[in-house]
Amino acid sequence: MGRRHAENLARSPSVDLVRVVDADEGAARTTGDELGVEWSTSFDDLLQDPRTEGVVLATPTALHAAMVEQAAAAGKHVFCEKPIAIELAPTLHAVEAAAAARVKLQVGFHRRFDPDWAAARERIARGELGDVYLFRSSLRDPRPPDMDYVSGAGGLFVDVTIHDLDTARWMVGEIEEVTAVGAALSDPAFETMGEVDHGIVMLRFASGALGVIDNSRASGYGYECSAEVMGSQATVRIDRHRRVHNEWLTAGTASVERVMTFTELFQDAYRTELESFAAAIREDRPPAVTGGDALAAFMLACACERSLHEGRTIRLEREEGPGGTAYQLQAIEAKGGSR
Amino acid sequence: MGRRHAENLARSPSVDLVRVVDADEGAARTTGDELGVEWSTSFDDLLQDPRTEGVVLATPTALHAAMVEQAAAAGKHVFCEKPIAIELAPTLHAVEAAAAARVKLQVGFHRRFDPDWAAARERIARGELGDVYLFRSSLRDPRPPDMDYVSGAGGLFVDVTIHDLDTARWMVGEIEEVTAVGAALSDPAFETMGEVDHGIVMLRFASGALGVIDNSRASGYGYECSAEVMGSQATVRIDRHRRVHNEWLTAGTASVERVMTFTELFQDAYRTELESFAAAIREDRPPAVTGGDALAAFMLACACERSLHEGRTIRLEREEGPGGTAYQLQAIEAKGGSR
Amino acid sequence: MGRRHAENLARSPSVDLVRVVDADEGAARTTGDELGVEWSTSFDDLLQDPRTEGVVLATPTALHAAMVEQAAAAGKHVFCEKPIAIELAPTLHAVEAAAAARVKLQVGFHRRFDPDWAAARERIARGELGDVYLFRSSLRDPRPPDMDYVSGAGGLFVDVTIHDLDTARWMVGEIEEVTAVGAALSDPAFETMGEVDHGIVMLRFASGALGVIDNSRASGYGYECSAEVMGSQATVRIDRHRRVHNEWLTAGTASVERVMTFTELFQDAYRTELESFAAAIREDRPPAVTGGDALAAFMLACACERSLHEGRTIRLEREEGPGGTAYQLQAIEAKGGSR
Amino acid sequence: MGRRHAENLARSPSVDLVRVVDADEGAARTTGDELGVEWSTSFDDLLQDPRTEGVVLATPTALHAAMVEQAAAAGKHVFCEKPIAIELAPTLHAVEAAAAARVKLQVGFHRRFDPDWAAARERIARGELGDVYLFRSSLRDPRPPDMDYVSGAGGLFVDVTIHDLDTARWMVGEIEEVTAVGAALSDPAFETMGEVDHGIVMLRFASGALGVIDNSRASGYGYECSAEVMGSQATVRIDRHRRVHNEWLTAGTASVERVMTFTELFQDAYRTELESFAAAIREDRPPAVTGGDALAAFMLACACERSLHEGRTIRLEREEGPGGTAYQLQAIEAKGGSR
Repeated sequence: MGRRHAENLARSPSVDLVRVVDADEGAARTTGDELGVEWSTSFDDLLQDPRTEGVVLATPTALHAAMVEQAAAAGKHVFCEKPIAIELAPTLHAVEAAAAARVKLQVGFHRRFDPDWAAARERIARGELGDVYLFRSSLRDPRPPDMDYVSGAGGLFVDVTIHDLDTARWMVGEIEEVTAVGAALSDPAFETMGEVDHGIVMLRFASGALGVIDNSRASGYGYECSAEVMGSQATVRIDRHRRVHNEWLTAGTASVERVMTFTELFQDAYRTELESFAAAIREDRPPAVTGGDALAAFMLACACERSLHEGRTIRLEREEGPGGTAYQLQAIEAKGGSR
Repeated sequence: MGRRHAENLARSPSVDLVRVVDADEGAARTTGDELGVEWSTSFDDLLQDPRTEGVVLATPTALHAAMVEQAAAAGKHVFCEKPIAIELAPTLHAVEAAAAARVKLQVGFHRRFDPDWAAARERIARGELGDVYLFRSSLRDPRPPDMDYVSGAGGLFVDVTIHDLDTARWMVGEIEEVTAVGAALSDPAFETMGEVDHGIVMLRFASGALGVIDNSRASGYGYECSAEVMGSQATVRIDRHRRVHNEWLTAGTASVERVMTFTELFQDAYRTELESFAAAIREDRPPAVTGGDALAAFMLACACERSLHEGRTIRLEREEGPGGTAYQLQAIEAKGGSR
Repeated sequence: MGRRHAENLARSPSVDLVRVVDADEGAARTTGDELGVEWSTSFDDLLQDPRTEGVVLATPTALHAAMVEQAAAAGKHVFCEKPIAIELAPTLHAVEAAAAARVKLQVGFHRRFDPDWAAARERIARGELGDVYLFRSSLRDPRPPDMDYVSGAGGLFVDVTIHDLDTARWMVGEIEEVTAVGAALSDPAFETMGEVDHGIVMLRFASGALGVIDNSRASGYGYECSAEVMGSQATVRIDRHRRVHNEWLTAGTASVERVMTFTELFQDAYRTELESFAAAIREDRPPAVTGGDALAAFMLACACERSLHEGRTIRLEREEGPGGTAYQLQAIEAKGGSR
Repeated sequence: MGRRHAENLARSPSVDLVRVVDADEGAARTTGDELGVEWSTSFDDLLQDPRTEGVVLATPTALHAAMVEQAAAAGKHVFCEKPIAIELAPTLHAVEAAAAARVKLQVGFHRRFDPDWAAARERIARGELGDVYLFRSSLRDPRPPDMDYVSGAGGLFVDVTIHDLDTARWMVGEIEEVTAVGAALSDPAFETMGEVDHGIVMLRFASGALGVIDNSRASGYGYECSAEVMGSQATVRIDRHRRVHNEWLTAGTASVERVMTFTELFQDAYRTELESFAAAIREDRPPAVTGGDALAAFMLACACERSLHEGRTIRLEREEGPGGTAYQLQAIEAKGGSR
């Protein structure tokens, strides 16, 4: 992702890419040379460079929170891949550090920038669906990542479902309850690690609407990122993503090629999210995805984890912060009584 | 449905329709005359007619269980619309009465007879999906039925979800846990009656696979009956049911006509399920959908109801009966501990 | 087809099937016994039976014209498979004989009775397309018939294209010019016989609209019967016929099953065309497809054949007959000058 | 298109955009300033600039041929929008001038660079279709251009069909015969000008395969650029281009948004064709679309025009040039005899 972001920034008509930084000197040099920009192995140098207005972090998750804080301390705006951390405390700390330093913090929920999703959300926002009754989304990878990645990823809900939780909030609104189940099906290693590779989450929105998310680390057939929002006036579906528009016919069968990877599907979105981040800096307005959004999705993912382990619905309390844009989840409570 | 069944029987190449019975004399006469068969208002007469081998019940749900028992007592095979009853005791009693009398009891889970579903199930049964990881199904009506119907329907799970629960068992296998949420969204009358018009149910199969069902009484856009079964080797989807195969293009838009009603979609299935019932009688073999199947789907629906009210996962115990074909749900336990 | 028609008639709610006739006694007996009706090997007996109001002919093409005339002479209405003959003189003679005897003559252009096509045609007839600019249709068989059939079929245009020509007239209106090309591609036997197995025909309608038809005897992938009508206000497409609504997903691919045979696709249409014929008799009105329609499509097919051989556009003259419903093609002229 | 090309070049990772030139000083300045490159109103200055390796022409068609010759004389490689001219003589002259000067001449047949088309072509080239039997393509604009444009465009075949003719050659191979019809349907102005706004062309390939192209200047529903190639082993279709992957459901209807303009559909192709041109210069190899290709498509379009006016099939003679890559159409003959 770091390489991809660097390429998009190098080609952007609205951004000057100052420097690429990689702890691996070889990687830093190669990327810098190929893109025709300075390179270094020092994040500090980057932060001290007065030409730098913002930084884009695509480092391992374990480094995100500290680097967000460093950037904030240096007064640099930060774009950070999700999740900020796999624990609540550092996530909260990083978000607060950015807020206190008044730097913009944007998190990599790229789906919000995809043309399909943006078009659907716009029509929903205009009220064309009427009252929303049901939200449904699927996020599936064709094959599990390697187990080293899995062990540091914070679990399926924090690693994968977090995207759907953000999408749900963005498209339909705040969420008050989650109920989750999960299973380890594709590889015994998941069970050994106490992890699941398949999960389903039911949502109850503040509006009363219901939602359901399904996730798989082993769909086999390809990468799936699809959704449906059903309302009283209309329903919208985003799905059937093809690699090319070609249909291939052989005896008795018509087939199409599907996308296999998220990079293939979200090529445009990865470019657009950085353009949007740059525009937020340039125009001094809140980024399209805030630290508050990152925190909200993270806490919802934690609630899913708790629901999975306790076999019951988890309710979340929200409180609007004084800053207006802040979103806080104060408490998570198990719900075991009657409806 | 009674009229539809009678027409299908009258035109069947393999069945002789002996008589139509309706408590309403006018309806009985009209139907009998139009189809060119005897008519009467007395169910007893029908049961005593030695020419009658089997009866098809499309009466109000409240009458089903007693009529199944009467038919069993008279030694007649019975086809009964689902559900047999909206309470466990009469359901169980009716199923046992049919078993004791050694008459065949088939329940109206018509989806099993639809060409799309049958083709998918056959490929699953042949192992073409590999290990099943995920089952997903949607059943949605465009508009709520009238509230009189709703009040006697036994709730969304017993009235609607029961079809998806049967499909889940039929396609993937036995179910061990259900977790349900629901909401009253389209009409305040649902809330007043303590009912929901939208529901989501998560399933854990005995195989370990997960499942999810969503139901709506107010989809607005049309009748939806779709499913997906995802496996390690392949995934099958049944959806996008159109009224005609035509695409209509106007400036910037391509549209197709969807089915609006279940009778439109399942025309063939309604005919085939009766042919299958007749064949089971003729060939003296168990019907394709047994009383045990009806009981299992009903108890799963009851477990959903309990999960909805308690906000937690419900586990069901199964025990294979001595008859081999019997399926029993012995107990339902709330699950509130760790996974 | 004879067997299929007999089955549909035996099950029809509005028709009494009196008798099946087949020159092959075994076939006649088997069909009659299975359907529970009389059988015989004599067409004469059938014509002399006073109970017979109409006959359905599914004999070899070479017998059609004479049998239509016999039926007309006996005062029986006739449903005849297309084409009436592969020469103009017997076609014309048979049509005129039926007209003179005032018996109804319906020809087997079954596509007019298919729900998809009927729905499209109805919307066109209501003016929803505005002015029609372009008609396009494809009719393709997966594999060539055996060469004996081909040698007696009258050529691709008379055997296959005739269906599209009828559809074009029915949907858009009268045709004034045809221009055809063809090629023998799948099997050298076609070339040896002076036949083509692929053909394309361009049409100019009396309204000014253009049309194009393509036909293949060797599509390989399946049976194709699709069309598009493009108008100033809207465009309609009929295509993508599937065997079941299932989508099958494997790594990187989503596939659906297509129809392979015309009997599979037009099951309903074959039933409906006979119901429509019976209704025309019962209600004493012109059949939905007249002898005039058969004659028009046949003459258009002949014009295609001439265009293919002469390498130029062929213009047809029409003259409305005194009966109002009559359609006559008086002359075919080659057009070789400027537009 | 000039602006679009300039933007793509300015952002290209492999090209240095030296200068933008526009006869209109204001346009030149605006574009140059926005893209951060030099600007001028003089084509001569550009040609004399030693830094310039190649030029991209998006001027009015009437200027193309002369500018190609100027560029060739200056030893600059040329990318030129199609057609080079609307007459044969200047087209031929320009192609020959580029060849004589040994500069690369690439023509803007962008479809060859679209991912859908390129993927289909690659599978065809690998032989996956077996023997090709049928080629079909549609190119349609939603609304006619203004009549000033039409009057200088060289007719429908030279302006529009030329793209399909190039695609047909590229995908299936050389063409030996064309037969065309056309009509003026959407606006009486076309007839007044002796022009058509709808056309259909049938092709006979050197391989024996048949082809058909339909074009419209007034489809109403949107921009259409679709194709089908049917072979003995498989068939490929490229169609159903959507703006977004969203499906919108309202009562009884499911609709998708289609592309309305060619710029929307071919965004990637316009970028890729210039990258390909730059790579051909850099690697000193023939461009992906040569002057010979431009000439061939142009002569086929002229043959269509002649067929339309004479009402007969036109046969084209080819002769392979000494350079190996050269393609020449020596003669066009009317075919009016038997096949």
